[in-house]
Amino acid sequence: MMNRRMILVRIGQMLILESILLIFPLIVSFLYQEMRSITAFSTTIAITAVLGLLIVLFVKPRNRVIYAREGFAIVASAWVLLSLFGALPFFFSREIPNYIDAVFETVSGFTTTGATILNDVEKMSHGMLFWRSFTHWIGGMGVLVLIMAIVPTDSGRSMHIMRAEMAGPVIGKLVPKIKDTAKILYIIYLILTVLEMIFLLIGGMPLFDSVVHALGTAGTGGFGIKGDSIASYSPYLQWVIIIFMYIFSINFTLYYMLTLKKFMLVVKNTELWVYTSIVLVSTGFITYSIYPIYNNFHDSVRHALFQVVSISSTTGYSSADFNMWPNFAKAVIFLLMFIGGCAGSTAGGLKIARVMLLSKIVKRDIGHLLHPRSVSSVKLEGKTVDQNTLQGVSAYFSLYVFLICCTFFIISFEPFDLETNLTAAISCVNNVGPGFSSVGPMSSFEGYSDISTAVLTLAMLFGRLEIYPLLLALSPRSWFTKSNSRKLKKA
Amino acid sequence: MMNRRMILVRIGQMLILESILLIFPLIVSFLYQEMRSITAFSTTIAITAVLGLLIVLFVKPRNRVIYAREGFAIVASAWVLLSLFGALPFFFSREIPNYIDAVFETVSGFTTTGATILNDVEKMSHGMLFWRSFTHWIGGMGVLVLIMAIVPTDSGRSMHIMRAEMAGPVIGKLVPKIKDTAKILYIIYLILTVLEMIFLLIGGMPLFDSVVHALGTAGTGGFGIKGDSIASYSPYLQWVIIIFMYIFSINFTLYYMLTLKKFMLVVKNTELWVYTSIVLVSTGFITYSIYPIYNNFHDSVRHALFQVVSISSTTGYSSADFNMWPNFAKAVIFLLMFIGGCAGSTAGGLKIARVMLLSKIVKRDIGHLLHPRSVSSVKLEGKTVDQNTLQGVSAYFSLYVFLICCTFFIISFEPFDLETNLTAAISCVNNVGPGFSSVGPMSSFEGYSDISTAVLTLAMLFGRLEIYPLLLALSPRSWFTKSNSRKLKKA
Repeated sequence: MMNRRMILVRIGQMLILESILLIFPLIVSFLYQEMRSITAFSTTIAITAVLGLLIVLFVKPRNRVIYAREGFAIVASAWVLLSLFGALPFFFSREIPNYIDAVFETVSGFTTTGATILNDVEKMSHGMLFWRSFTHWIGGMGVLVLIMAIVPTDSGRSMHIMRAEMAGPVIGKLVPKIKDTAKILYIIYLILTVLEMIFLLIGGMPLFDSVVHALGTAGTGGFGIKGDSIASYSPYLQWVIIIFMYIFSINFTLYYMLTLKKFMLVVKNTELWVYTSIVLVSTGFITYSIYPIYNNFHDSVRHALFQVVSISSTTGYSSADFNMWPNFAKAVIFLLMFIGGCAGSTAGGLKIARVMLLSKIVKRDIGHLLHPRSVSSVKLEGKTVDQNTLQGVSAYFSLYVFLICCTFFIISFEPFDLETNLTAAISCVNNVGPGFSSVGPMSSFEGYSDISTAVLTLAMLFGRLEIYPLLLALSPRSWFTKSNSRKLKKA
Repeated sequence: MMNRRMILVRIGQMLILESILLIFPLIVSFLYQEMRSITAFSTTIAITAVLGLLIVLFVKPRNRVIYAREGFAIVASAWVLLSLFGALPFFFSREIPNYIDAVFETVSGFTTTGATILNDVEKMSHGMLFWRSFTHWIGGMGVLVLIMAIVPTDSGRSMHIMRAEMAGPVIGKLVPKIKDTAKILYIIYLILTVLEMIFLLIGGMPLFDSVVHALGTAGTGGFGIKGDSIASYSPYLQWVIIIFMYIFSINFTLYYMLTLKKFMLVVKNTELWVYTSIVLVSTGFITYSIYPIYNNFHDSVRHALFQVVSISSTTGYSSADFNMWPNFAKAVIFLLMFIGGCAGSTAGGLKIARVMLLSKIVKRDIGHLLHPRSVSSVKLEGKTVDQNTLQGVSAYFSLYVFLICCTFFIISFEPFDLETNLTAAISCVNNVGPGFSSVGPMSSFEGYSDISTAVLTLAMLFGRLEIYPLLLALSPRSWFTKSNSRKLKKA
């Protein structure tokens, strides 16, 4: 049987953490004297705190061991509940009167997608705007990883949770203890976020704007507070955001290596170079394509680079309406939506490491076809990748394509054109944010019906958690059958 | 070193066969007294016959052994040359004055894609129309398999050629001898083609139309001879074509089993049932979607089924302009384009068997995730599929997606919209024929520039030969390095 009490305990801890995190937007609401937001946040804090405390106080697990399937179940249920409760402030304050829409917005926040159902974001209160962007920051690195970093941990094998919550094909520990790894990651995350805020303030961006944009960039989320996203800010501010979107879509391990002065490890990181090359080449193509529009080399390069980094990092901010760009530029952006940023960052998408592994698997298999008896291993960053991981990457890719197809199929009942529905599905699964046509960067997902909104909400969650946790949580088999792994462990 | 002389011999045989096959359209041209076509076909026959004979007479291979890489090289070069020479009649007669366009049309024929660059197909001579449809028939089962069936074979391991030319993840021999397998397949193919022709004649379709449509259906090609494809023919004729498109997209092995009275093997064939279910469910969805257009249950069902079977079997005929259908119907068709028909048929696409294997691999890997020490095998049609084949299927899927992305990227330089370019790429790689928007079923690929036409031509070849043969033929490594497999064989 699944260790259900242990799962409940983790969920309880998560709810308490959420109630603490909700204090920040409550403070913002106080500062701006937004009465309705104050009530909404206070009520939500009360509900989550009481519920969380009740669980933590009254549920006593018999053993604290967590296996792979408990890890998946914890992550899946924690993320769903986090979103369902996180949506309450929007709903209570009536700023998003439809609860399904509020959940969409919250999930879009936590999954760092940045797709919005708000048609006029500038009408929103400061408290809600702050909460929206704060969800990006929380979801970027993972709420359970945050719990690991701050709660005195049990002996349980939390590695399974970290592996299920953090994105990418291979998750490594930075230091022997998982708890310390989580701490280091969050410290790097916090420092970089503050750094961006300072650079934005220097450029003359108002304090509130700086905070929300720093939070949104850090999580590679993309919720803006203007109808035209980042387009109306100065070129300097756009450059700052370009650089930080790039920074947050790189493997965080590399920053830790920098603090250890292991510069060669950073320089030799092939994923970093592949990612940077993709960004630069795509920028070159798009600059060439959009030059006739801006008739100015500087503007063309800045807009091209902004959109390329924004889509590659799956942030989703925009400095220009790429939906109005020539088809060639749109084709490049379309392809970038799938790839995403580096593994071990806050970026979504397939991840560069996974794309690299896929191409290496293909290369190996072609060699195998010519020389059927040859044996060759696949290496990534100098290390041999084991057969299980390779099989996992291939299977993940099939599932990923299947997920996009399913999402696209279900939302195709909507009266939108193929381009809208297809890019909406791709954008949500890859946690990018904007798509093309009716879901372009200057539009919203408002037009979708409740059913499609719910489907897209699920798609974002599936994409952020890389499919398996939710898939396993949804299958009754994993809750009710006996665990072979435990039996084998004991044997 | 590669056994290059043996490759040349096979190419020589193929050229001689092509010159013989060209006699059929020459006869048609004589019957319709089309002087320019007669000259064009005669000249091409002379060129291919002389070239082929010269090769066969003067090249003497030292040994006749064919390994996997020779198999791939033979198939790749044979198909490229077959198309380059097969395009000559169109070019010589000036009916397709641009040679690149003529090659596109020929490759589209041999690969059984059915995409056309002809804007007004009704202007073409009978000889050329017949040749176009005849290329479908030749390419459907494979020209080298045809050689195997009719030429007194050498002891060489022709299995490698068959495996490389015939589509699907697992190619089995029907009988111990490959030569006999090839013969049986071609006999079934011929009988079914003639049967369709008879049913079309019974329905009052003119002889010439019956012949070309039977040839086009048999190869699951889709070249029509009317501007509106099959739309202007009677419902009876449309039903006949529906049934035969379905028949030709089913594993031919099953027909052989029927002749052996092994009915249970047919009934128990899961691929058949999966395929049939996909067709029926899709038809249901589309009927629901298009009912408001036709306001008539019979017409809606017929048009829905026709388009579903046409796209699933990757034939590409159309009884209605599905480009004008509601978005939901288009979404279903869009997804069907990827899947294709059954393995071992003349259909293109991913193939049902491959999609089934992919989903089984995913299922196994999910189980593995929950129970890391469990060992489970993947079965297809009751037989365990070996690990190499499974890896191959996963790798193939990655390559396939990569091929579509590349094709889409390169043709995106064209001024068409995303929907046009994306579906053009998908349609060509899957050998379907029509796409959406500017390459819809009632339009043509005429608008593409020479470069894009060439890229789409390559995409069709890659799709038909399932990527590997061409990929290996394009890599210099396979031509110039030593073969490990041979060395290991001798050891």
